[in-house]
Amino acid sequence: MKLSITGGKSFDIKEGVTIYETLKANGVFLVSPCGGKGTCGKCQVKVASGGAVVKSYGKLGQKERDDGIVLACLTTANADLQIEIPEHSKLVLGGKIAVSIFKDTAAYLKSYDTGFDPLAKRVSLTLPPPSIQDNIGDLERLSRSLGDIGITTMRYSHEFVSTLMETLREGGFNADIAYSKTNDTSFDAISVYPTGKSLRRFGLAIDIGTTTVVVYLVDLADGTVIDIGSTYNSQTKYGDDVITRIIHATEGGGLADLRDTVVGDINTIVDFFITKHNIKRHDIEAAVISGNTTMAHIFWGLNPASIREEPYIPTINYYPLWDGSQAKLAINPQAALYTTPSIASYVGGDIVSGILASKMHRSSGISLFMDIGTNAEVAIGNDEWIMTAACSAGPCFEGGGIKFGMRATQGAIESISIDPNTLTPSISVIGGEVPAGICGSGMIDAVVELYKAGIINQKGVFNPAKTPLVREGEDGLEFLIYKADNPQRDIVLTTVDMENLIRAKAAIFAGVSLLLREAGLTLDVLEKVYVAGGFGNSLNVEKAIMFGMIPDLPAEKYVFLGNTSIIGAYLTLMSDSLRTELESIASKMTYIELSVVGDYMDEYMSAMFIPHTDFTKFPSVAAVLGM
Amino acid sequence: MKLSITGGKSFDIKEGVTIYETLKANGVFLVSPCGGKGTCGKCQVKVASGGAVVKSYGKLGQKERDDGIVLACLTTANADLQIEIPEHSKLVLGGKIAVSIFKDTAAYLKSYDTGFDPLAKRVSLTLPPPSIQDNIGDLERLSRSLGDIGITTMRYSHEFVSTLMETLREGGFNADIAYSKTNDTSFDAISVYPTGKSLRRFGLAIDIGTTTVVVYLVDLADGTVIDIGSTYNSQTKYGDDVITRIIHATEGGGLADLRDTVVGDINTIVDFFITKHNIKRHDIEAAVISGNTTMAHIFWGLNPASIREEPYIPTINYYPLWDGSQAKLAINPQAALYTTPSIASYVGGDIVSGILASKMHRSSGISLFMDIGTNAEVAIGNDEWIMTAACSAGPCFEGGGIKFGMRATQGAIESISIDPNTLTPSISVIGGEVPAGICGSGMIDAVVELYKAGIINQKGVFNPAKTPLVREGEDGLEFLIYKADNPQRDIVLTTVDMENLIRAKAAIFAGVSLLLREAGLTLDVLEKVYVAGGFGNSLNVEKAIMFGMIPDLPAEKYVFLGNTSIIGAYLTLMSDSLRTELESIASKMTYIELSVVGDYMDEYMSAMFIPHTDFTKFPSVAAVLGM
Repeated sequence: MKLSITGGKSFDIKEGVTIYETLKANGVFLVSPCGGKGTCGKCQVKVASGGAVVKSYGKLGQKERDDGIVLACLTTANADLQIEIPEHSKLVLGGKIAVSIFKDTAAYLKSYDTGFDPLAKRVSLTLPPPSIQDNIGDLERLSRSLGDIGITTMRYSHEFVSTLMETLREGGFNADIAYSKTNDTSFDAISVYPTGKSLRRFGLAIDIGTTTVVVYLVDLADGTVIDIGSTYNSQTKYGDDVITRIIHATEGGGLADLRDTVVGDINTIVDFFITKHNIKRHDIEAAVISGNTTMAHIFWGLNPASIREEPYIPTINYYPLWDGSQAKLAINPQAALYTTPSIASYVGGDIVSGILASKMHRSSGISLFMDIGTNAEVAIGNDEWIMTAACSAGPCFEGGGIKFGMRATQGAIESISIDPNTLTPSISVIGGEVPAGICGSGMIDAVVELYKAGIINQKGVFNPAKTPLVREGEDGLEFLIYKADNPQRDIVLTTVDMENLIRAKAAIFAGVSLLLREAGLTLDVLEKVYVAGGFGNSLNVEKAIMFGMIPDLPAEKYVFLGNTSIIGAYLTLMSDSLRTELESIASKMTYIELSVVGDYMDEYMSAMFIPHTDFTKFPSVAAVLGM
Repeated sequence: MKLSITGGKSFDIKEGVTIYETLKANGVFLVSPCGGKGTCGKCQVKVASGGAVVKSYGKLGQKERDDGIVLACLTTANADLQIEIPEHSKLVLGGKIAVSIFKDTAAYLKSYDTGFDPLAKRVSLTLPPPSIQDNIGDLERLSRSLGDIGITTMRYSHEFVSTLMETLREGGFNADIAYSKTNDTSFDAISVYPTGKSLRRFGLAIDIGTTTVVVYLVDLADGTVIDIGSTYNSQTKYGDDVITRIIHATEGGGLADLRDTVVGDINTIVDFFITKHNIKRHDIEAAVISGNTTMAHIFWGLNPASIREEPYIPTINYYPLWDGSQAKLAINPQAALYTTPSIASYVGGDIVSGILASKMHRSSGISLFMDIGTNAEVAIGNDEWIMTAACSAGPCFEGGGIKFGMRATQGAIESISIDPNTLTPSISVIGGEVPAGICGSGMIDAVVELYKAGIINQKGVFNPAKTPLVREGEDGLEFLIYKADNPQRDIVLTTVDMENLIRAKAAIFAGVSLLLREAGLTLDVLEKVYVAGGFGNSLNVEKAIMFGMIPDLPAEKYVFLGNTSIIGAYLTLMSDSLRTELESIASKMTYIELSVVGDYMDEYMSAMFIPHTDFTKFPSVAAVLGM
């Protein structure tokens, strides 16, 4: 059977396979934060004609159903089928790189003042051809010439040696060797090519987030980022957060499924790169994986059960170099794969990458680092010490658990203001079109504007008397942010959303407060606050402070870094000395388990107000509000 | 369909699969030096009843055909089938260990005065259980405890780490670690077990000969050889010698077939051990492979093409430690596999193993080492230097190319004398039964006795006038050694056999002569002559000298070692310091390419007589013969 997109391509669709899966397998990605399990209601397509078998309409309203809209993940085919894909359902592959300092990553690498020395290196050798007088084996000949240039402890895999005889002769004993460095004195051979046969070489920087996966395709010859791909982490269909995924992996016996799912997401992006840029799979010779502890474990197929059980122990923090085939990545099977080291079960390699990207570990001044993604992690320190902790903030700033929540991509409301007189909101939408949802910065704006306008109180409770825009919805009171032509697509912020947002910001602020206290410091010593995560430049510092999510410090101390996990992975891929630096950061990070620090609950409860129960902690807010 | 053995077991037999293959797959081995390709005529079975489909009778005579004898490798079934297996067709799995010094291999190991330190080691660790205060990862915990006992540079594979979480907890953080040493300071982790779960551990010493495969099952706890298995190398079906196998591997595209064939032979023996001794496959944690250069290449799937082409270059002489899964062996996939180093394309790891087994490299006196197997290799040297060469002797002393040739196993005529008056032969048969063929020592006896009796001349040409036992056969004149009830089983030595034997001994003696000359030495400096190969104690030194195969030296200088390739493999498996010693032997061996040494042809032609054209080289023979 054929699945045709109006004005686009056609694909084979098999009986029992959903439209969502069929499109995905063919490189057409739909918005689907739930990973295709039918709960988010976002992968909408319109059936133009043909045999659609609708298992369920899920969240779709009657109007949409009447318009022929179905959820692609809940619809299969029993005959040829033609569909239209609305703009708001299309997933934009390739995210924006949030801030200026990372716009030119190769230039940013130079700012580290370190050698360009990628994880997979190349050396060209001209070997003396064998003769009766010089009749040593091919490998010994290669090894001898490598020894002449100081590489004496190369380790050769069976796969490497398997093609050596033919390769050396094909190149007339001129060969290019790809290899990586395992430690100060040891090397691993990756591949051997006849000189001139493999003209380019590539690496991947991979950030595995709980919600999204981002991959950079990098030219290993000069560090250029050739392309960026991103997609939702399809593991989401097994659960939104790491805990439910761990339960699925262990009690549910789904470790292999989870692993295959995320590896499949990465391979989908890799396939996309390979086709688009016409590169050879085998020429992708290295990758750096950065993710939280659970994501890294699942990527490698390691049982994450003990991460969830006290005393919260990961199988591994410092990963050896393993290879492409062990990772099941569709690249050179011998590719060198480095995984960024994690600190503890809930502070992973993504945070260590973030510290590297921020450079706070190089400064004698004390900085705060906050990574607000599907969860939030914080770190405080300088060039001598770093303390770190994980906050149970949840995924709401990435859209999880928020009715109209979404990532900061096309169609997201990223800022909101409410006219103090008319109490009507004005919105700004990424891409400038009809809004599809609201992203993290938009949510914070909304809460703060609602609070300033008196539409919610300090606890986030709606006052329906204030404006008719506060109305009764499915989940209790809600505020109408955007009125759509179709009431099903009205964008609102609900009472449940409000509770989730306040809980999340309270967890973050309590984490920062306790970490400062554990370090024996006060806010005023902080020279910089680095904020990583999806917010990027779109976060309004003043409003985030008024929300009580981030410390009340002058805006100029804040630096927004965007996705630092992928940047750390990129830096590590590009330079062995930065890989060493990354490990030295990890070794000096001290993990604080907040749940066993006595006053955590008190700090958390105090932060469950806008901005806080204690206004002396937010003097600038107190001044604005005249308190 | 069923294949039943009278008085024995029954097996399923599939249509189109030969009786030979079916029996082999079920652990019943038949004599088949040709590897089951239908040419040697030795895998005879008698069809008792049922549906035998005889593709060809091959070498079988009419009498045997009338008796219901078929060749198992040329017969399939189309209905249930019952067979009898004659004694002379049964392959004795497990060869004799030829000589006294190796009877107790563990005791022989002690004679090296080296530490017992097997390739796969074990260490038991009691790790401090994790806590909130001591919350490092499992691998870091393991690594920390290993560091406490001085093992700081262990390399952990993905497979090793994959089971670590469960294993540590199952054992209450008491774990047994199997590992190997890769060099002076580095280690490779093999497996981890909860303490007490893997009570035994085993290793394999494997000799891959061109004609036979021998495997020792060794207890790695104390070095006991638990069992010995041997079988024909089934690659023989693709060719008798290494050259025809290389041609099959390269021009014939049969490298994968050849590899799978020999790996299958080894795995058959391993399966036999596992069942017989009730051991766990996973507990076989190490193996040492010893074989000639071509056999080692094919075992590892390395293209042997360049071995055959001038300047005769192998892909690899010094093999890294690879693992069980890469070798496709049915043992622990992470088992440490060491391959003994080779010297050149025609002097392999089997010879280096032999030098180690002989201990000639430890003596200041100069010794000669001769390994006479499917080919012959020689070495001369002492504790400072060793020179080595390969002689194109061919496989006749193992039975190849000799009409009734066979290995020195049950049923082989191992010695012959001819009454000088009656000119009738007396024979001695291994196992004392009806002879099935003639082995190397029997052949040498026969030639010398025939020569002394005047039945052949110095060139090996029969004199039919001398005795009616010289008769006309299929291949010209032949000598009747044993008259059977069935004329088809008369054992004879033919004119072609005679030519092959003289060519072989000439190649060996020419090799020894040239090597001595290249070293600038004469025979009288030799303190010992070590003879390795299938001959064992059954070789009569006096007769081998009279044949002109080995130098004319006093019998007390000769030491017969049997299969030294397997002994070297065993020693290497048992001790890392002997592994180092083996590599140091290899590094000091100088290979002499006889084909480019000017006078090789002259030396060879002079040796094509019994014992030699130059009787001054064989003074003891001259004395006996009164010349």
